[in-house]
Amino acid sequence: MKKLFAEFFGTFWLVFGGCGSAVFAAGFPELGIGFVGVALAFGLTVLTMAYAVGHISGGHFNPAVSVGLWSGGKFEAKNLIGYIIAQVAGAVVAALALKTIISGKAGFDTLGGFAANGYGDLSPDNYSMMAVIVAEVILTAFFLIVILGSTNARAPKGFAPIAIGLALTLIHLISIPISNTSVNPARSLSQALFADGAYLSQVWVFWVAPIVGAIIGGIIHKTLFENE
Amino acid sequence: MKKLFAEFFGTFWLVFGGCGSAVFAAGFPELGIGFVGVALAFGLTVLTMAYAVGHISGGHFNPAVSVGLWSGGKFEAKNLIGYIIAQVAGAVVAALALKTIISGKAGFDTLGGFAANGYGDLSPDNYSMMAVIVAEVILTAFFLIVILGSTNARAPKGFAPIAIGLALTLIHLISIPISNTSVNPARSLSQALFADGAYLSQVWVFWVAPIVGAIIGGIIHKTLFENE
Amino acid sequence: MKKLFAEFFGTFWLVFGGCGSAVFAAGFPELGIGFVGVALAFGLTVLTMAYAVGHISGGHFNPAVSVGLWSGGKFEAKNLIGYIIAQVAGAVVAALALKTIISGKAGFDTLGGFAANGYGDLSPDNYSMMAVIVAEVILTAFFLIVILGSTNARAPKGFAPIAIGLALTLIHLISIPISNTSVNPARSLSQALFADGAYLSQVWVFWVAPIVGAIIGGIIHKTLFENE
Amino acid sequence: MKKLFAEFFGTFWLVFGGCGSAVFAAGFPELGIGFVGVALAFGLTVLTMAYAVGHISGGHFNPAVSVGLWSGGKFEAKNLIGYIIAQVAGAVVAALALKTIISGKAGFDTLGGFAANGYGDLSPDNYSMMAVIVAEVILTAFFLIVILGSTNARAPKGFAPIAIGLALTLIHLISIPISNTSVNPARSLSQALFADGAYLSQVWVFWVAPIVGAIIGGIIHKTLFENE
Repeated sequence: MKKLFAEFFGTFWLVFGGCGSAVFAAGFPELGIGFVGVALAFGLTVLTMAYAVGHISGGHFNPAVSVGLWSGGKFEAKNLIGYIIAQVAGAVVAALALKTIISGKAGFDTLGGFAANGYGDLSPDNYSMMAVIVAEVILTAFFLIVILGSTNARAPKGFAPIAIGLALTLIHLISIPISNTSVNPARSLSQALFADGAYLSQVWVFWVAPIVGAIIGGIIHKTLFENE
Repeated sequence: MKKLFAEFFGTFWLVFGGCGSAVFAAGFPELGIGFVGVALAFGLTVLTMAYAVGHISGGHFNPAVSVGLWSGGKFEAKNLIGYIIAQVAGAVVAALALKTIISGKAGFDTLGGFAANGYGDLSPDNYSMMAVIVAEVILTAFFLIVILGSTNARAPKGFAPIAIGLALTLIHLISIPISNTSVNPARSLSQALFADGAYLSQVWVFWVAPIVGAIIGGIIHKTLFENE
Repeated sequence: MKKLFAEFFGTFWLVFGGCGSAVFAAGFPELGIGFVGVALAFGLTVLTMAYAVGHISGGHFNPAVSVGLWSGGKFEAKNLIGYIIAQVAGAVVAALALKTIISGKAGFDTLGGFAANGYGDLSPDNYSMMAVIVAEVILTAFFLIVILGSTNARAPKGFAPIAIGLALTLIHLISIPISNTSVNPARSLSQALFADGAYLSQVWVFWVAPIVGAIIGGIIHKTLFENE
Repeated sequence: MKKLFAEFFGTFWLVFGGCGSAVFAAGFPELGIGFVGVALAFGLTVLTMAYAVGHISGGHFNPAVSVGLWSGGKFEAKNLIGYIIAQVAGAVVAALALKTIISGKAGFDTLGGFAANGYGDLSPDNYSMMAVIVAEVILTAFFLIVILGSTNARAPKGFAPIAIGLALTLIHLISIPISNTSVNPARSLSQALFADGAYLSQVWVFWVAPIVGAIIGGIIHKTLFENE
C-alpha cells in the first residue's frame, strides 16, 4: 500500500510540476521559461521524487515504465494493475489541481490545449501521426535503457535518479515540438481529459507508442546488456 | 550557536542569491536570465549551502522547512524559535545588502516590487489569493516530502542536497508567474519590508500557506512513507 | 560483442538527442531551446548513457574519445576499429531516424544544414577553417583531460559520467557558433552525409582536428597528471 | 610541479570556457546562450576540472581561492606564489587562445570589451565602484564558505566539485550585470590585458575585492563553522 501511495504522489508531482510549468510559465512574456524550462521541470519532478520515494516503490511514476521494467524482467506482472491505477489517479488529481489554480488567473476563460499531447494539427509543430509514433517509441525505448542500465547492480550506486530524471529532461528537449512529449500514458490521459480540442481522440497513440517503446527498451536491455 | 550561524548565513545566501538574481539579472535586455535563471539560482543557493553547512544545522534556511521537519518528527519544537529568528535575520540582512547594491546602479530611484511575493494585482500574472494559497500549500508540501524522503536512512547517502536544491528550482519553474514563488516565509518577509507597494499587507499569506503546506508534507511523509 | 552494442546505442542516443534537439527544437518560435538547450541535450546524452552502459563498454560514443583513451594508455589499439565502426553505425542510423521524423513535419521539403559541422561559409558565425581547427583541437584535448582525470583511480567514484557529460555541455556552450561543435567525428559524418550543402567536403576537418586534440589530451594526462 | 600544471590547465579551462562562452555565444542572434549559458559555462569549467585534477592540486584555479583557503587554514602560505603564477599564466594563455579564434571570425575588427570586468561606465548595467566592491566581496566570501564547507571532513564525500562548480554558476547568475562577475583576479587580469577600453585601470578592484572577500570567507568558516 505504501508503494501505491508513493506512485500516486510521484505521478501527481510529475504532472503538477511538468505540465504545470508548461501551463503557467512557459509563455510568460519576455521572462518565460520556454521549452528549456519545461524540459528541466519534467526531469526534476522525477529526480526529486526518485530520491524521496524511489526506495519505497522503485519510483516509476509512469505506466510505460512499469511495463518496460516488467519486459526487462525487473517487475512482477501481478503488480502492474495496481501501479498503473495509482499512477493514473495521481496524474488526474494533479490535472484537477492545475485546473483549479489556472482558473484563478485574472481573465481566465479556457484551458485551451492544456499541456496535452497530440499529432497532426494538434502537434506543436504539426508532425504527422507516423512521425510522432516513431519519436515516442524511440524515446521511450531509450528511457527504459537508461532506467534499467543505471539501476543495474554494476552501475554506480545512488546516481540512478540523476540519470533517469535528466534522461526525461533530455527527452523533452528533443521532442516537445513533435508531440509535446509524452513517453508517459498517465501524463497524456490526465491532460487530454480536460483540454479543449480533439486531444482525447488521439490519446490512444500516447498509450500505445510509449508502451511499445518501453517493451522494446526492456528487451534490448535484457538481451544485449544484461549479465548472463 | 554554530547551528544558528549556519542558518543565518544559509538564509542570507538564499535571499541574496535567489532574490538578487531576480532583481539584478532577470530582465536584463536580450541577455537576461529570465525565470529559468532565477529558478536555477534559488535552487543552487540551497544546494550549495546544504553541502557547505548542512552537516552543522541540517540546512533548513526556511521557517516552513523547520516547522515541516518538526511535523514530520525530525526536529525538536524547542529549537524552532531560535532557528526561525536566525533565518529571518539572515533574510532581512540579505535584503539590506541587495538594496545597498541596487542603489549603486546608475539612474536607480525605487526598488519597485523588489522580489516580493503577492496575489491579485501583486501577482506577476494576476492570480487570485485562493489560487496562490492552493499553489503555495501544494508546493511546500511536496518540498517537505522531498526533504524528508531524500534524507531518510533508506535513501542514497549524500545526494539529498541535490534533490532538495533542485526541488526548489522546480518549484520556481512552476510558480513564479503565480505568486513570484515563496514557500519560504523568511524570504517573503525580507522582500515585503522594503518593496514599494502593498506587499507587506499580503505577507501573512506567505507565512500561513507555506507553513500549512509544510505541516501537511510532514504528516504525509510520517504517516504514509515512514517505516513503522 | 556486448561492448559494441553499447557503443552503437550510446552513439545513436548522442546523435539522436544532441542533433535532434538542434533540428527539432532549437529554433521553435518564442519557446525554442536555443544553443543552451542543445548544449544541455548533447551533454545529457552522454551523462545518461554513461550511467546506463558505461560499465559495459566504458561509454566512449565517439571515435576521438576511443583514440584519446588509447593515447592516454587506457584503451587497447586492437579494439579501436570495432569501437569506431559501432560508433559510426550508431550515428548514421540515428541520422536516418531523425530524417524520418523531420520528414513527417507539415511543409517539410529539405534538411538544409541538418546539424552538420562546418567552417567558413558553413560555420554558424562564419569562422575560418584555422579558427575552427584551433577550437576543435583545444576542446577535444580538454574533453579527454576531463575523461581521463575523472575516471582516474584517485578521483571520487561514480561521478565521472556527470563530469564527462557536463564537459560536453560546456564544450557546446562555447563553440556552437564557431563550428556547430563537433569534437566527435562520428557525429559529424552522420550529419554531413544527409545535409544539403558542401558539408561532406569539409568533414575531414572534423575527423582530423578532434582526433589530434584527443591524442594531445591523452598525452597531457599521461605525462603531466598520471601517477608514476 | 604536477600541482602547478593542474592549476595552469584548470585556470586555462576556466577562462577559455567561461569567457569564451561569453565572447562567442552569449549574444548570437535568436539562439544565443545569454547570461544563463555563460553562468552555466563558468560553473562547469570548475566542476569538470575539479573532478579531473582536483585530487592533484586541490582545484583552486583562482588566486582568491588560494588566499581564502590559506585564511581558512587549509593551504600553506609558502605555496601561494607558485599557485598564483600558474593560475595567471593559464588565464593569460587562454585569453590569447580566445583572441586567436575570434580573430578568425569573418568581419572581426576589435575585441571590444572582451569578457573584461568593470565598474561605472564599464559595468554591464552601470553599477558604481562601491556597489561592485560590495557585491564582489560578498560573493567571494560565500564562494569560500561553500568551498571550505563542502570539502570539510563532515560533508558528504565526492560531491564538493558539484557544490563548488554550481556555486560559481550561481554567482554569475546574480552578478554578471553588476561587474560582469569576477570573484577571480586571474580571470579579470587576463581579459583586461587585451580588452579595448580602460579595463586595465580598473583591474585592481578585481584583485582587491575578491581577495578581501575570500579572506573574510575563510575566517567565517574557521571561526564559526569549524570543529574545535
